[in-house]
Amino acid sequence: MLKGIEFVKPEDIEKKSFEIITGILGDRKFPPLHEPVIKRVIHTTADFEYADMLKISANAIENGIEAIRSGCGIVTDTSMAAAGINKKALSKFGGSVACFMDNAEIAEQAKAKSMTRASLCMDKASCDANNRIYVVGNAPTALIRLYELIMEGKISPALVIGVPVGFVNVVEAKQLFKTCKIPYIISDGRKGGSNVAAAIVNAILYILLGKEGRN
Amino acid sequence: MLKGIEFVKPEDIEKKSFEIITGILGDRKFPPLHEPVIKRVIHTTADFEYADMLKISANAIENGIEAIRSGCGIVTDTSMAAAGINKKALSKFGGSVACFMDNAEIAEQAKAKSMTRASLCMDKASCDANNRIYVVGNAPTALIRLYELIMEGKISPALVIGVPVGFVNVVEAKQLFKTCKIPYIISDGRKGGSNVAAAIVNAILYILLGKEGRN
Repeated sequence: MLKGIEFVKPEDIEKKSFEIITGILGDRKFPPLHEPVIKRVIHTTADFEYADMLKISANAIENGIEAIRSGCGIVTDTSMAAAGINKKALSKFGGSVACFMDNAEIAEQAKAKSMTRASLCMDKASCDANNRIYVVGNAPTALIRLYELIMEGKISPALVIGVPVGFVNVVEAKQLFKTCKIPYIISDGRKGGSNVAAAIVNAILYILLGKEGRN
Repeated sequence: MLKGIEFVKPEDIEKKSFEIITGILGDRKFPPLHEPVIKRVIHTTADFEYADMLKISANAIENGIEAIRSGCGIVTDTSMAAAGINKKALSKFGGSVACFMDNAEIAEQAKAKSMTRASLCMDKASCDANNRIYVVGNAPTALIRLYELIMEGKISPALVIGVPVGFVNVVEAKQLFKTCKIPYIISDGRKGGSNVAAAIVNAILYILLGKEGRN
């Protein structure tokens, strides 16, 4: 082996990573269903601030589990988040992931209406009642539009994962969800991202499959 | 508009974000070609630690620019990083992105050899001499294998972007590159990720295109 590199069997890397995370978290306690979600986000980011930043509303994870089990559609605002979600695991329950960011019609509409593509994607997604989990990892404008669609009574998602990242309306968009009754998983502050979004969905999938990791 | 939400035209969001980042960075100075890379990674993560963590070797960005301009192939270790790279911008120079993580043959070989798929992907990528930029956003095992291929004289990349994230051999794998002569962009420590990897590639693309953002 190379200097400083320890040999770890491929199938043991994730397990060992979670042990290290658990060790660093030390005495911190989380509700049982929150723990695997928080740890997987830390596994994805190596950022322990997520232990404090992730806000998980009552029954959010239970709702996510039930929606996935019933074969719901999952909508994301970026192709990166869509790429990161374990679609093989999801397909076991009949579910699939949709992302409309590359849709040519949406790009045209966005230009014409001076709206972001991400927000129009939420409108498009809202037309399919089977889309019950909304996952925003990038654009606060998507999260804002989602909130409006909920307030207008057009959709009532089982779960909103709202972890956009950035500097313009990001903190504020996340705060909106704390005032409505839709179950949410949100990252307080500016941080988040497509990787965080995908990690949260995968953590819920693995809880449902009764295992910690993808193996 | 909703409470607390400020209207910003879609085409101005990224510009405004970069202005906020610049403001927060204050008096910090970076070499001219490093600055857009560092700022784009902060834009992607909202994590200002990257201003210190990113290590960019001499001529790394210049080399990346020249390789992209000449139409090189870019290899990534995750489909998320591949999804995040601006392939429309890249295609203007004739380049493309390859990721072999979903290759069935590699999955079989990985099992048989007790190696990670990510490390075998580097072997596969090394067979095409046009692959001149290697982008590792997830698996330290890919970065380690890349280092071995370089040491064995099998490849001599124009640029290695080594920003895997995690807890097992991550810090050590990145350190390897500081001892070899291949131009690198590395994130010190445990942090990194597919989003960071894609942001670095896109920043280089936008330098080449003479603009700050994707618009």
